[in-house]
Amino acid sequence: MKISDLGGEAALINLIRDKYGAPGAGDLVLGIGDDAALIRSGGGFLIVTADLLVENTHFRMDLTEPYLLGWKSAAVNISDIAAMGGTPTYSFVSIGLPDIEVGIVEAIYEGMRDVSAKYGSVLAGGDTVMSGAGIVINVTQLGTVEPDKVARREGAKPGDAIMVTNTIGDSRAGLELLLKLGLAEARRASDPCVLRHLEPEPRVPEARAAVTTGKVHSMMDMSDGLAADLRKLCEASGVGARVIAGALPISEDMHIAAARLDLDPIRLAAGGGEDYDLLLTCDPKDAPEIARAIAASGNGIAGRSCARVIGEIIEGNDVTLVLPSGEEEPIGGSWEHF
Amino acid sequence: MKISDLGGEAALINLIRDKYGAPGAGDLVLGIGDDAALIRSGGGFLIVTADLLVENTHFRMDLTEPYLLGWKSAAVNISDIAAMGGTPTYSFVSIGLPDIEVGIVEAIYEGMRDVSAKYGSVLAGGDTVMSGAGIVINVTQLGTVEPDKVARREGAKPGDAIMVTNTIGDSRAGLELLLKLGLAEARRASDPCVLRHLEPEPRVPEARAAVTTGKVHSMMDMSDGLAADLRKLCEASGVGARVIAGALPISEDMHIAAARLDLDPIRLAAGGGEDYDLLLTCDPKDAPEIARAIAASGNGIAGRSCARVIGEIIEGNDVTLVLPSGEEEPIGGSWEHF
Repeated sequence: MKISDLGGEAALINLIRDKYGAPGAGDLVLGIGDDAALIRSGGGFLIVTADLLVENTHFRMDLTEPYLLGWKSAAVNISDIAAMGGTPTYSFVSIGLPDIEVGIVEAIYEGMRDVSAKYGSVLAGGDTVMSGAGIVINVTQLGTVEPDKVARREGAKPGDAIMVTNTIGDSRAGLELLLKLGLAEARRASDPCVLRHLEPEPRVPEARAAVTTGKVHSMMDMSDGLAADLRKLCEASGVGARVIAGALPISEDMHIAAARLDLDPIRLAAGGGEDYDLLLTCDPKDAPEIARAIAASGNGIAGRSCARVIGEIIEGNDVTLVLPSGEEEPIGGSWEHF
Repeated sequence: MKISDLGGEAALINLIRDKYGAPGAGDLVLGIGDDAALIRSGGGFLIVTADLLVENTHFRMDLTEPYLLGWKSAAVNISDIAAMGGTPTYSFVSIGLPDIEVGIVEAIYEGMRDVSAKYGSVLAGGDTVMSGAGIVINVTQLGTVEPDKVARREGAKPGDAIMVTNTIGDSRAGLELLLKLGLAEARRASDPCVLRHLEPEPRVPEARAAVTTGKVHSMMDMSDGLAADLRKLCEASGVGARVIAGALPISEDMHIAAARLDLDPIRLAAGGGEDYDLLLTCDPKDAPEIARAIAASGNGIAGRSCARVIGEIIEGNDVTLVLPSGEEEPIGGSWEHF
């Protein structure tokens, strides 16, 4: 049986977790299955996460720039640290390289360094090897979090408000523009959407502000898009969810890009991916406090963020989108059809 | 300028370390440049190391078995933890996979699990992705070490005895057999040498026993072979070394394999690679105590180990091999020519 027959990447991850992953025991508070692992360390928790990117599978050099590739490689890992409520500390970069220009390699590292420095992390080690199979980058990111501030995917309760930060779907619109128009023309069409895809900002201060309220029930970062990630959060929490399409935060830039692409902005926002904004749940009465904390958190690092309620957690396991027409459908289910 | 013009992998690593690596400061006791990084954590040190393996660059599926590939991927990282005097704890495995048989993936994880369990480590996380560029494996291994037991590459002093554990060159002989004969025939020719290459034992109990004597001045594991690794140790310590060819520990199996390959056993032992045995230095008067500790350390985990003195640390920066003829030459320098 091949991986595709088993059910692809997600099914394989479940198999590996169940058969080869360590259960949370002893100092290992949380193993495979959340945004990152948690290990008891002194009086706090060590957070560890890793992401592997393979050229022409996860990125194309003609659709990005070396600096942006480095930025994103580090940013998506820092985002996983934020998703747990933590602070990034050290990164370990393993890179496989064909015999390319040293300037390209330096630009990749400059991107990683800049986003790391912006959010307080430094490069502490890794592995640098030649590769006959294109560029390969694995970043393992460490972080720390106080035990009383840990956010996890589980913990959402029926009746919770569902919140997301900033706007969603911009990154997916940027990707669609890149695939359709190429890098230069896509940037001319919508630089903001393309950069949301190529140069995402991990929401570290926002996540810290949210968990510091003590009111967050569950949280994750949206790497696979609202639909897929909300399903994961609901599965981990044993609940369902109802999202109101009219409440989805959609930027003016994304509206313009969607028009250019002849795609529905609501579908892009719900079914898109790689937003790297936060998805969280809380008691509805605490939503304003969390939104205020997030709005006050930016510290000028990456501009002001906002957070808004987009739906509610319900009993059961249905995860649905309520369309402006009033129709309710499985969220993200019709992505392929529009 | 391409990477090869810069001087290849080693030159690139130096550039990355100098321009993008964090200096040892604050909780980061040791950054890029040793076998692993050291981070202050509670009352001890966290050790972090990573190795990236790319199919057809670092391994060939026709010259190994999936189980052995998994074993080795984890073992070489555990060996880096041992090299620092530490105990392995948690591994994070990022794997990129074409759409291959699930049974192959499971065998890879079984190999990783078995060597990890043998030395006390568990799989705590990672990333599993599809890859259009063959199999890619990055293991990031964590470990811990008490501050008074840390071993580093620097610390060797003129007059120190140079010691290695077990026998060296077997792995290189195994690799030469694999390249010349293919897997099946190479195993028939010398299963012990081939398995030293494909299924190395990280020397965790041996390293712990050595550092527990408190008498080790410097230590590392031999991944690139005695010649290359001793040069690194000497460079880090600001010293030179003189190795006595007649003192190199060479196994009977390697002698037989070398004869079959028509290669010089001394050259294989000095210039070979991937031994994953320990290289350490100490005051000559402490060598017997360290050798006894190592001999007593096996605990049945992987049979008895031994350690022996193969030369001495000298002033200056020459690293030489004293041949049986009495001639002295740069160690490993003539590898390509014989």
